[in-house]
Amino acid sequence: MKKITALLLALMMGLTLTAFASEEAPQTAKYVFFFIGDGMGSPQVTATRYFLGTANNPDAQYPTPSDLSFTTFENTGLMTTYDSSSFCPDSASTASSMASGEKTLSGVINYDVNKENPFKLVSEYAKEAGKKVGVVSTVSVDHATPAAFYAKSQSRNSYYDIAVQAFETETLDLLAGGGFKQPKGKEKDKKDVMEIAAENEWTVIEGADAIRNLKPEDGKRVYFNTGDLVGGAAMQYEVDRQRIEKDGGDSLSLAEVTKSAINYLDNENGFFMMVEGGKIDWACHANDAVTTLYETIGFADAVQVAVDFAKENPEDTLIVVTGDHETGGLAIGFATTAYDTHFDYLFTQNISYEDFDKEVGKLREEGKSFEEALELIQKCYGLTTEEGSGLTLTADEVDRLENAYLQSMLPYKQRVIGAEEAFLYGGYEPLTVTCSHVLNNKAGLAYTSYAHTGLQLPVYAQGVCSEDFVGSYDNTDIFFKLMSAMGLTPESK
Amino acid sequence: MKKITALLLALMMGLTLTAFASEEAPQTAKYVFFFIGDGMGSPQVTATRYFLGTANNPDAQYPTPSDLSFTTFENTGLMTTYDSSSFCPDSASTASSMASGEKTLSGVINYDVNKENPFKLVSEYAKEAGKKVGVVSTVSVDHATPAAFYAKSQSRNSYYDIAVQAFETETLDLLAGGGFKQPKGKEKDKKDVMEIAAENEWTVIEGADAIRNLKPEDGKRVYFNTGDLVGGAAMQYEVDRQRIEKDGGDSLSLAEVTKSAINYLDNENGFFMMVEGGKIDWACHANDAVTTLYETIGFADAVQVAVDFAKENPEDTLIVVTGDHETGGLAIGFATTAYDTHFDYLFTQNISYEDFDKEVGKLREEGKSFEEALELIQKCYGLTTEEGSGLTLTADEVDRLENAYLQSMLPYKQRVIGAEEAFLYGGYEPLTVTCSHVLNNKAGLAYTSYAHTGLQLPVYAQGVCSEDFVGSYDNTDIFFKLMSAMGLTPESK
Repeated sequence: MKKITALLLALMMGLTLTAFASEEAPQTAKYVFFFIGDGMGSPQVTATRYFLGTANNPDAQYPTPSDLSFTTFENTGLMTTYDSSSFCPDSASTASSMASGEKTLSGVINYDVNKENPFKLVSEYAKEAGKKVGVVSTVSVDHATPAAFYAKSQSRNSYYDIAVQAFETETLDLLAGGGFKQPKGKEKDKKDVMEIAAENEWTVIEGADAIRNLKPEDGKRVYFNTGDLVGGAAMQYEVDRQRIEKDGGDSLSLAEVTKSAINYLDNENGFFMMVEGGKIDWACHANDAVTTLYETIGFADAVQVAVDFAKENPEDTLIVVTGDHETGGLAIGFATTAYDTHFDYLFTQNISYEDFDKEVGKLREEGKSFEEALELIQKCYGLTTEEGSGLTLTADEVDRLENAYLQSMLPYKQRVIGAEEAFLYGGYEPLTVTCSHVLNNKAGLAYTSYAHTGLQLPVYAQGVCSEDFVGSYDNTDIFFKLMSAMGLTPESK
Repeated sequence: MKKITALLLALMMGLTLTAFASEEAPQTAKYVFFFIGDGMGSPQVTATRYFLGTANNPDAQYPTPSDLSFTTFENTGLMTTYDSSSFCPDSASTASSMASGEKTLSGVINYDVNKENPFKLVSEYAKEAGKKVGVVSTVSVDHATPAAFYAKSQSRNSYYDIAVQAFETETLDLLAGGGFKQPKGKEKDKKDVMEIAAENEWTVIEGADAIRNLKPEDGKRVYFNTGDLVGGAAMQYEVDRQRIEKDGGDSLSLAEVTKSAINYLDNENGFFMMVEGGKIDWACHANDAVTTLYETIGFADAVQVAVDFAKENPEDTLIVVTGDHETGGLAIGFATTAYDTHFDYLFTQNISYEDFDKEVGKLREEGKSFEEALELIQKCYGLTTEEGSGLTLTADEVDRLENAYLQSMLPYKQRVIGAEEAFLYGGYEPLTVTCSHVLNNKAGLAYTSYAHTGLQLPVYAQGVCSEDFVGSYDNTDIFFKLMSAMGLTPESK
């Protein structure tokens, strides 16, 4: 109506329509941030808000949540994540769908279900349109989610091939976060991917300080070697990173990497950046709730960096935050705690399952007793055999921990691996995952699975064209919405 | 910008601003539907889409979801549900928050946390503004959720007092769905609420046909006595209702009740209607996934009736669909099925846990053997001891069923009720809930709890002012959004 009225008025006045036509031209986003919390659905977001709210409001009379950087975003949507293999998809297919607008099989990166035809990616279109393109992840940069924004591979496990593509493709200007799982190939008989990087005019930025102080002129294309990588060539878990920093160490956060990436990529044609919080997923696979919550906080802190950038560039910036699938079937509510939750019980745990696995390894090597294991558990998880605490172990919980301890003290080859163990431990270090289960459940949290689930995910969007991300849609629609936000049109097939 | 341009043009032309001012007046909704799926969060919605999609596409090569009536709605939001008692709230406090814009304790209906001051309700404001008001639920109409839209009570358990309020309040024009839990008081010593209804000019519409053919002139205010109520004075479970209809019986659906309620309430001043699918929650409490999915389908069918009405009144209608809290911690994904789901395994179950409880009662009364119980289980759930089917019971599953059978065959007073039983059976009939657990898990579904959980919920909105329901917000905001959509302003306190 408004448009028609304005047009009529214009005609009445004999004005040309130019002014109105230009006014109606769709606005596009010069800077596009696409944040993926791997394994992050509403359970992870809600639990983190309640955990943070409990920590931030110790004297609150009533339950009080805190917001995360993206839970105040103006626009929200709901996204299905199923792939061509399953309603419970994997990260390769789901990231491919968001990057390309196409469905495919679990395990496949940007090839169709017949593994014959590659897809064209939103990052490729963005690059062709003159934007710079960056890919950032807390996990190895050849992992499925980051890979889906620059590579095409019939198998996500072709890590070396994917890494070669990273450095040979014209798409990327920046690759940052974790390392490479097979930098010299599966058999360690190939040319080091760092050599390939050098051949393709990539500059490796070494160490935390160099990364923090990176300038656009420091290289034509840059890869960050963050330096303190852990298992799977990934960045530290946020819970471990915070402990390291408290102990006087220096460990880069995803937020710091994201900030440096923005400084590097910013240019007059804009950029497209995919930033992944990849270890929310890993922590959920391991049913480690505390590590999950810290990872989600670290991810939200990275989004905050983009929010701060958007404040400086409000007319030009789009930020989209979602997950690729939910992991673990996390719930705020457990059978025996019913309507009670105790997020405060989670405050003691200051270690990820990965670092606690190392402690369990020491117990095993040093032949420590179960009583000594219980002392370690009390130190790391707060769980105690002393009476009178909410974290006091019941007889049944002690039994479960002791059974798990006995398994964990065996060499791997001697362990029982049956259906019951698959249910109880999911292939994880029995003592570690049992500590997580016991603590989670006391706090009123629970997982149903060690794998991904089929839950629809929330999408949070802020800024230019963010209204396009409202409604219920499929993960393939993300591609079209991102393209449209940049004013780009997919090639017809 | 558009507004400013139009204003400048108007000034230049010397026109009065009247035309533009009226053009800018906010549009309001004459007809407002507020649908609450009790216990319905994203897990229930997503699982129902995947269950229906599997049923509707038996020959599909790839996983294929179906839409529900409301999953195509244009606008979507995310809502927190915590109350003043817990992050895992109850239906009394959450419905109160949506009805009044205020937080309160679990168990309290429209009183503050001190149980002193009552709240003023969106339905009361709507009535004062000249709209008709209807409340519809599949559960007893004195239950917490429907009650929160007409009553105020320090305790949700004051069923008689709530029922009296239903018929004495000026707020309601229509009350429909289930019956009353204590129509003559807890001690059965009070005046029958039906007498109170008659004294207050309510007309009781008896039976399915009378309800289906109801006309506005059939009573000044109407209460539906649907006739075939089951446990808790509730309407039939949808899975049982469909079985009854298949067997040639007649049982009203929530969709039919909703349609009749619309026909009755439609008038030139519009209406406000709250429609609850109350037994999604009950099925989730019982961890009965199939019954959960059917209940969600029945609820979506009721929303479809409102969608059809909105097609006839597109400029005047707002439909909002959400839950009050999630129940059960449902996940599409289980530890031992990992990435596999088998929604087709759920097709055999054609009975709710409530009706199966009756079958278990017969087994107990007739002293039937475990083998006979297994025959019944095969008939009702498809679970079988015959080899070669996805529904073939493992030895462990047979053990679990036999342990549950042994408990279920005992008189209630002789049953073991310890921590393990609380975890395994949650107070439900052991054999029934174990059948649900075994079938759920084989299909790749699982619950973590028998209670409500803290998950944020999706909100789906369509029609006039539906854009106000986009974003992340609290359940108390629903009140303000509904008020605003009707052009109403809350009184200052």
